[in-house]
Amino acid sequence: MGNEAFSHLDPDGKARMVDISEKQDSKRIARARVAVSMAKETVLALKKGDVPKGDVFAVARVAGIQAAKRTGEIIPLCHPLMLSSVTVEFEVSDDKVEIEAEVTTVGRTGVEMEALTACSVSALTIYDMCKSMDKTMEITDLVLLQKTGGSSGDFSR
Amino acid sequence: MGNEAFSHLDPDGKARMVDISEKQDSKRIARARVAVSMAKETVLALKKGDVPKGDVFAVARVAGIQAAKRTGEIIPLCHPLMLSSVTVEFEVSDDKVEIEAEVTTVGRTGVEMEALTACSVSALTIYDMCKSMDKTMEITDLVLLQKTGGSSGDFSR
Amino acid sequence: MGNEAFSHLDPDGKARMVDISEKQDSKRIARARVAVSMAKETVLALKKGDVPKGDVFAVARVAGIQAAKRTGEIIPLCHPLMLSSVTVEFEVSDDKVEIEAEVTTVGRTGVEMEALTACSVSALTIYDMCKSMDKTMEITDLVLLQKTGGSSGDFSR
Amino acid sequence: MGNEAFSHLDPDGKARMVDISEKQDSKRIARARVAVSMAKETVLALKKGDVPKGDVFAVARVAGIQAAKRTGEIIPLCHPLMLSSVTVEFEVSDDKVEIEAEVTTVGRTGVEMEALTACSVSALTIYDMCKSMDKTMEITDLVLLQKTGGSSGDFSR
Amino acid sequence: MGNEAFSHLDPDGKARMVDISEKQDSKRIARARVAVSMAKETVLALKKGDVPKGDVFAVARVAGIQAAKRTGEIIPLCHPLMLSSVTVEFEVSDDKVEIEAEVTTVGRTGVEMEALTACSVSALTIYDMCKSMDKTMEITDLVLLQKTGGSSGDFSR
Amino acid sequence: MGNEAFSHLDPDGKARMVDISEKQDSKRIARARVAVSMAKETVLALKKGDVPKGDVFAVARVAGIQAAKRTGEIIPLCHPLMLSSVTVEFEVSDDKVEIEAEVTTVGRTGVEMEALTACSVSALTIYDMCKSMDKTMEITDLVLLQKTGGSSGDFSR
Repeated sequence: MGNEAFSHLDPDGKARMVDISEKQDSKRIARARVAVSMAKETVLALKKGDVPKGDVFAVARVAGIQAAKRTGEIIPLCHPLMLSSVTVEFEVSDDKVEIEAEVTTVGRTGVEMEALTACSVSALTIYDMCKSMDKTMEITDLVLLQKTGGSSGDFSR
Repeated sequence: MGNEAFSHLDPDGKARMVDISEKQDSKRIARARVAVSMAKETVLALKKGDVPKGDVFAVARVAGIQAAKRTGEIIPLCHPLMLSSVTVEFEVSDDKVEIEAEVTTVGRTGVEMEALTACSVSALTIYDMCKSMDKTMEITDLVLLQKTGGSSGDFSR
Repeated sequence: MGNEAFSHLDPDGKARMVDISEKQDSKRIARARVAVSMAKETVLALKKGDVPKGDVFAVARVAGIQAAKRTGEIIPLCHPLMLSSVTVEFEVSDDKVEIEAEVTTVGRTGVEMEALTACSVSALTIYDMCKSMDKTMEITDLVLLQKTGGSSGDFSR
Repeated sequence: MGNEAFSHLDPDGKARMVDISEKQDSKRIARARVAVSMAKETVLALKKGDVPKGDVFAVARVAGIQAAKRTGEIIPLCHPLMLSSVTVEFEVSDDKVEIEAEVTTVGRTGVEMEALTACSVSALTIYDMCKSMDKTMEITDLVLLQKTGGSSGDFSR
Repeated sequence: MGNEAFSHLDPDGKARMVDISEKQDSKRIARARVAVSMAKETVLALKKGDVPKGDVFAVARVAGIQAAKRTGEIIPLCHPLMLSSVTVEFEVSDDKVEIEAEVTTVGRTGVEMEALTACSVSALTIYDMCKSMDKTMEITDLVLLQKTGGSSGDFSR
Repeated sequence: MGNEAFSHLDPDGKARMVDISEKQDSKRIARARVAVSMAKETVLALKKGDVPKGDVFAVARVAGIQAAKRTGEIIPLCHPLMLSSVTVEFEVSDDKVEIEAEVTTVGRTGVEMEALTACSVSALTIYDMCKSMDKTMEITDLVLLQKTGGSSGDFSR
């Protein structure tokens, strides 16, 4: 397998930010998903307790949106992008919180990393807010669900 | 379960940055771990191909170290902390790369979130660098391994 | 009044970054204004004293320009924008300094928040530089003066 | 009035970050307050409408807390500080929302600018979230309410 | 010589971010170069020692790429730009390391400052990583090599 | 020459942020210097022209001070530090502007990189503000002048 597989590496294997100047602006969307596994008691406290869960999720949602916008700073070889929209949704079940992020841009490159970063940072924020009662949480199964737009073709998991 | 379980929420359930001004400076260490699952071909390309894997890991390591330092910016309710050290290590097996981060500080609060953030961002960076050849990677099993120092007691998974 | 009034909230009332991908690029300008009220002695020190006022205003101007560029980081649901120009002007009277900022972009959304943020941060910088002699200053009357461009129509106060 | 009045300016009037290396660590608290004046309809929409006001305030609270932590980046001559706590509270009346922020640190210099910056950015965030329905809002009466700790004496408005 | 020579200053000599809203998007490239002079022993340690030089250069390369992306934050009057590519190359001789950076964008203004900033920060990173063995290093001869695109004409040193 | 020469590299040569948790807080000062060489006409425009040089230097000074505070973000393996003071001075001669920065902290590690970064960014800012009239400027001779405090001994060039 040759070097062309890794577009971030030049023929000598050094890191670079790959050239997208010849690509065209197009509308691009990406969706990613992650889960925060936690003790049932922690979920219950989030769902039914005195704890106003709304606020936990509101903080985690804001954190994810802001992280999506700063992906080009956080991930070294990502291009800076002007995002058109970011949404972050939560789904709570017995022993986990699942997070889905969708990011849209009109630009020269895709937004998978932005959607994945939004999920990661939302999950870390939930972890941070629950860690005083549960240190065994796991952030798990972060995947790209779907990607549309751009010349490399659509992807759907 | 009362509100005291969630130290980031005040008695009315609103977000706040919890007061650590009465806590003492002490040496605190945290270790976290995450895995990036990928196709065996992707691991092979990383390990044996023409691709100089050193660079992929070097970039991911730098990304993790820098993210650890910026945790207080990325996670909304984290305290800013002056980190004393950060290390990020990689272990490559057949179908995944595992990442372990260790963070040390001398301060008034622990560094779990810093270690977890370093792992997340290193994993996202590996994902970013391999995504042109493999869109089915998963970032998974992010956990806190160990935490020492501070008044709340040590933790080991 | 329905939810459509608050474009940052989806139909369920959760925060999101609203989708601007279908909007067109157009030239957009916004002007905002704020006042820093202070003791007459503080104004005199700024205007006539040995203190070279130029430098105070130069620092406050730079702070405002830089803040305008970072509005998308500072205000959680603002879109990142590539600003075309930023100017910050000062007008000194007996008991206050007034600041006016104008921001221009060619983009898919307006720059009111950028102009307001430039004013706020310039005002805070003046406050910071004068606070050792006057702790009773007030930052007041921050308003949008004018907004042109975009499909929602022009606004003038 | 001599130059000593402006501690940010050296004897020649140039900007500098003043030396605090000989000051002692002590616990310091500052409280600031600001108002966002708006049409009664806007307040009603926030208070009674279908709009879940919790989310608006949750986003504005997070924005204020994060801005407090980044004050040393936003205000050019502020010292970087490790904040011990930040709280942001809202009080809604007929035609305005008032915001009060309290910041605590254990450090060599005070946190007035951090409290004022938290208020400013929370107010700007409320403005941003309501601006689609009301372009005549004013952010006004931003003042320091109280300041304790440090050698320069306490201040109370 | 009149004020028009300094496009960052308005006719009264105050700083501003110059208006580029009437300029056209075009592909723009800039290349810059810098040298880090060091003791021959330091170069030898970099080149032949047990030290894996790859990592030093990998870290410095990442630092330069990231700094290029953040030029609009670091240099007060620079416009934010969406970079299309960044490359950073090293050339090691007897008593120095030379660094060349090339930056590409499709935008309304040039990328000289981005190329120069990438060089500066890469050089500072090498300095940082070698400073424990050599405190007499010099970072020197930072120049713009070439600039193409845009209406002001091409430049080549 | 063994690996111990490069304290940023572990025995296997991988990057890390070196552990300073066992070091003691002490007052540390560093001074650095750099020159911006330019055409005599450019210096004259700065010195005698209609151009108010004060503003150019004011902007460059603010840029240097802010960059010093963000050194831990800009240089990947630098520790975050709480700076006690930063000063940036300019000296103009026939064909160059020289910049000297002094940084002070009370902390566990030195501030050479902060002083060097302040010089670099001040120089880049002058370059940026003069580049419309002179594209042949050079930023050159960036060196550490002096370093005091800490266990590794003082250094003076």
